[in-house]
Amino acid sequence: MPQIRLALAQVNPCVGDLAGNVDRVLAGARDAHGAGARLVAFPEMVLTGYPVEDLALRPSFQAASRQALDSLAARLVEEGLGSLVVVVGYLDVIDDGHDRLGRPRGGPQNAAAVVTGGRVVARYAKHHLPNYGVFDEFRYFVPGASTTVVRVDGVDVAIAICEDLWQDGGPVAQVRDTGAGLLVVINGSPYERNKDDVRLELCARRAREAGCPLAYVNMVGGQDELVFDGDSLVVGADGALVARAPQFEESLLVVDLDLPMADPTTSASTAAIGFPLPAYTPEPPSVAPRLSDDAEVWQALVVGLRDYVGKNGFRSVTLGLSGGIDSAVVAAIACDALGADNVHGVSLPSVYSSDHSRGDAADMAERTGLHYRTVEIAPMVDAFQGRLHLSGLAEENLQARVRGTTLMAISNAEGHLVLATGNKSELSVGYSTIYGDAVGGYAPIKDVPKVDVWALARWRNEHALERGETPPIPPSSIDKPPSAELRPGQLDSDSLPDYAVLDDLLDDYVENDRGAAELVADGFDQALVERVLRLTDVAEYKRRQYPPGTKISSKGFGRDRRLPVTNRWRETVPDQD
Amino acid sequence: MPQIRLALAQVNPCVGDLAGNVDRVLAGARDAHGAGARLVAFPEMVLTGYPVEDLALRPSFQAASRQALDSLAARLVEEGLGSLVVVVGYLDVIDDGHDRLGRPRGGPQNAAAVVTGGRVVARYAKHHLPNYGVFDEFRYFVPGASTTVVRVDGVDVAIAICEDLWQDGGPVAQVRDTGAGLLVVINGSPYERNKDDVRLELCARRAREAGCPLAYVNMVGGQDELVFDGDSLVVGADGALVARAPQFEESLLVVDLDLPMADPTTSASTAAIGFPLPAYTPEPPSVAPRLSDDAEVWQALVVGLRDYVGKNGFRSVTLGLSGGIDSAVVAAIACDALGADNVHGVSLPSVYSSDHSRGDAADMAERTGLHYRTVEIAPMVDAFQGRLHLSGLAEENLQARVRGTTLMAISNAEGHLVLATGNKSELSVGYSTIYGDAVGGYAPIKDVPKVDVWALARWRNEHALERGETPPIPPSSIDKPPSAELRPGQLDSDSLPDYAVLDDLLDDYVENDRGAAELVADGFDQALVERVLRLTDVAEYKRRQYPPGTKISSKGFGRDRRLPVTNRWRETVPDQD
Repeated sequence: MPQIRLALAQVNPCVGDLAGNVDRVLAGARDAHGAGARLVAFPEMVLTGYPVEDLALRPSFQAASRQALDSLAARLVEEGLGSLVVVVGYLDVIDDGHDRLGRPRGGPQNAAAVVTGGRVVARYAKHHLPNYGVFDEFRYFVPGASTTVVRVDGVDVAIAICEDLWQDGGPVAQVRDTGAGLLVVINGSPYERNKDDVRLELCARRAREAGCPLAYVNMVGGQDELVFDGDSLVVGADGALVARAPQFEESLLVVDLDLPMADPTTSASTAAIGFPLPAYTPEPPSVAPRLSDDAEVWQALVVGLRDYVGKNGFRSVTLGLSGGIDSAVVAAIACDALGADNVHGVSLPSVYSSDHSRGDAADMAERTGLHYRTVEIAPMVDAFQGRLHLSGLAEENLQARVRGTTLMAISNAEGHLVLATGNKSELSVGYSTIYGDAVGGYAPIKDVPKVDVWALARWRNEHALERGETPPIPPSSIDKPPSAELRPGQLDSDSLPDYAVLDDLLDDYVENDRGAAELVADGFDQALVERVLRLTDVAEYKRRQYPPGTKISSKGFGRDRRLPVTNRWRETVPDQD
Repeated sequence: MPQIRLALAQVNPCVGDLAGNVDRVLAGARDAHGAGARLVAFPEMVLTGYPVEDLALRPSFQAASRQALDSLAARLVEEGLGSLVVVVGYLDVIDDGHDRLGRPRGGPQNAAAVVTGGRVVARYAKHHLPNYGVFDEFRYFVPGASTTVVRVDGVDVAIAICEDLWQDGGPVAQVRDTGAGLLVVINGSPYERNKDDVRLELCARRAREAGCPLAYVNMVGGQDELVFDGDSLVVGADGALVARAPQFEESLLVVDLDLPMADPTTSASTAAIGFPLPAYTPEPPSVAPRLSDDAEVWQALVVGLRDYVGKNGFRSVTLGLSGGIDSAVVAAIACDALGADNVHGVSLPSVYSSDHSRGDAADMAERTGLHYRTVEIAPMVDAFQGRLHLSGLAEENLQARVRGTTLMAISNAEGHLVLATGNKSELSVGYSTIYGDAVGGYAPIKDVPKVDVWALARWRNEHALERGETPPIPPSSIDKPPSAELRPGQLDSDSLPDYAVLDDLLDDYVENDRGAAELVADGFDQALVERVLRLTDVAEYKRRQYPPGTKISSKGFGRDRRLPVTNRWRETVPDQD
């Protein structure tokens, strides 16, 4: 059987940075060539970054993507990499010269190119266009309909893109008919909790269906609220795992495969390159260890923040440090993502802030080494109150807004990105002040339920101890009862149910779309169900105004969940009669 | 030929208010019955409101929509309206009991029901699902595939929904084959400038293709950033206009039609109701006059604001009155939408505000009778500056944010919705302070270019004079050079090109997706093109944080245009070589 040394390059492209992405692909190709690989595959739409949203509809961007592909082909030759077979994702267009209602303008396609010898020798357009959750691909792309098989050194290699793999009866099912010896699937598959388990199982099943080994390459890095976790892998024709790349970091996975010789009496559907090689001794494949569930979420949050900050041209962040658990966890994520020297914590105490809270904020700074300052908000609050004489909720919100304005002023003056520190539980029920604690460019734990915020804090501290480091999060921030400290003696539990109950209920309502009657049937208290659902339904506008944040669940209150603001639908439990 | 008296009920449903929408349909049916109509048609998804976005995927909402339809059928009979033939849009589901990847959960369909005699006698599911611009229907609906023809008093009536009409070769093309005598199309077609002309021309063309008269019913009213303009109409088989309802207001359009007798040797595809009536004298059809272009846009903005405020449970609004043109126009729209007694203008002068500006703000209040107060911001700005010592842009932004916080405090204390007053030109290039002038629940002129803001102001004042009323907008607000007044002597022209040039350039770039090279070839100055495009590209985050506003163009910076925040694509003009 012919041998092929295959490389899967899980790289971190940046949306819109076509020149930079070409450089990233060239660097990966150089590494693959250095490792002796014959074929190197890069992720879905690596040349444009992914997802590009409405940029896909812009003619100048479509043209730029095709030019980037041509430029890549030429530069591979210039760098002496012309003999390598490179599979890259990019934005292509169908050149049939007409537009019609409902077809994306210009005929854009989510495409893969096979580049070798300075030329594009084969192209493939994605067949299955996901249009659910975070995906809008019917808006952007014209689906492909044909299969692509290239013969590399005597082995037929079929190409597919991401969703093609997930669809039953998709092009992967046709691969068996083509008799391909290897299926290469390029992906832009965003992280979700536990998705890595699903992904391996899926790849194994599809490899068995296709009757050949399957190589799966995914991108890494953050893009707005999405984070791509890599986790590239190769499974054999029997579905057994052969090799696996690490999660969340750039990596080149190199694998030697023994593959069936293509039938020499037939020709590949698209292109033939090279001849079978003399036998050589394969390198042993590597299987990177999996992260624990907590480590995986933490790493997603760190990478999501790091790339949002860096790809948007910031180097540092600022945030309010209240002494509470949310801001402590966000600060710890920021220190891991950017280094403590790029994190500027600001204590913004009011007359209602406890000494304990001030102490916890200072303790956080001391444990991590982040920059720390204190701005008392009383003078500004008093100046507003001298004119406005507010009380109740208006007064509580005023304090939060003075804090937001102060953080934005520091941001404008010093150039840091402001981080919002709200968690998913409070955003669900609208326990947040618009233009107050909702101020910021990014909200790292927006998709993390409160109970999980505590769990992550404990995990991060234990992880530090295991490595002989100082735990970053003050134990008192973890252990004390949560409070917004916007009035004397205020506790979250005055306004909200116990977070363990709330998070369970929200998970069933938000993630699983259970209705009120089902939730009551599941055992939740009826009054609680109706109250929490009402709070959640009316908080839509507030959530929309909240900054984006790394998505770790199936419904992260961003592009993945879309509700009208003007909406009088309220879940209720029908009367029993 | 049999006669049918047809009624088109252009009503204003509210998303999610299923009980209220059933009541609205019942009221329309009552009016149609009172007018002697045999058949009454209501808009697309009138029972749920439109668009419902992710509510379509919620099983409890799907069930509630079907229950609302059953309840409507029963109540029509209870009210003695059982003999009427009622066509209504609603959310249905395919009951095939399984979900699969990529198909919307539960199998929702954008459907029409024909209700008579207390029963649903026919159903139709929309074939063509728009998934561009503001539409996401591939995300939400399973397409229908069959035609629906009901025989009413001897006439075959075919049903279609909205996009079905726009697609060449869609179900409308099949209507000719069915030999239907009338095509009823129910719509949720949002307003865009000049769309009414396109709509009439389209209906005429499709009627000729179908070979029968076409009745087009559309909804009215605002839903988030969309406003539906009604404009229901009937055209004859020759495409000639027979009757037309007014724009932007609820209305029942009643038309007597002479229609061909269905072939008695065939049966209707779905249901047969009644028998041909004895001949009667038809009522003359009514054709409502069209609004002028300016009046049409003004009315769209008024209705969009009125319904956003009302449907979200507010009764009144507050806004900052700077004396400038933008806040004056927004205040005038608000007075027209809600009455001056529900509009609370706040002058928020700083040390940089001119006496002239204060005078213009007061003049606006006097002309319209809106509530007016002054809150000097100097004490609050000074309190921040005492701690933060800001200068430059940070100091300018601080003033805007103190104003935003003050307006939100008034909103929290008094219950008014805050209006943001930014126009499309300044939002395009990011000439706005996040959490400052961007504060608010709604932004009425978000989609109006600055040049059009002036034109609308002049039109509104002239319109007042024509009616013998006081022009609402101070002439000085229209005539003076625009300024943000955030530093001494500041003018918009210090930072931005002339608005006439800027608006032309933005229209070509944003609406028409022209690239930088094309814009320069069109005659725009290259340095200006590169500067404006860069400003526009990097302002994406600011625009996302801006409140929603009534969309009047094809790209209103809302659901209709979606770009990544993290995006390094910058339009440039390639070097000529």
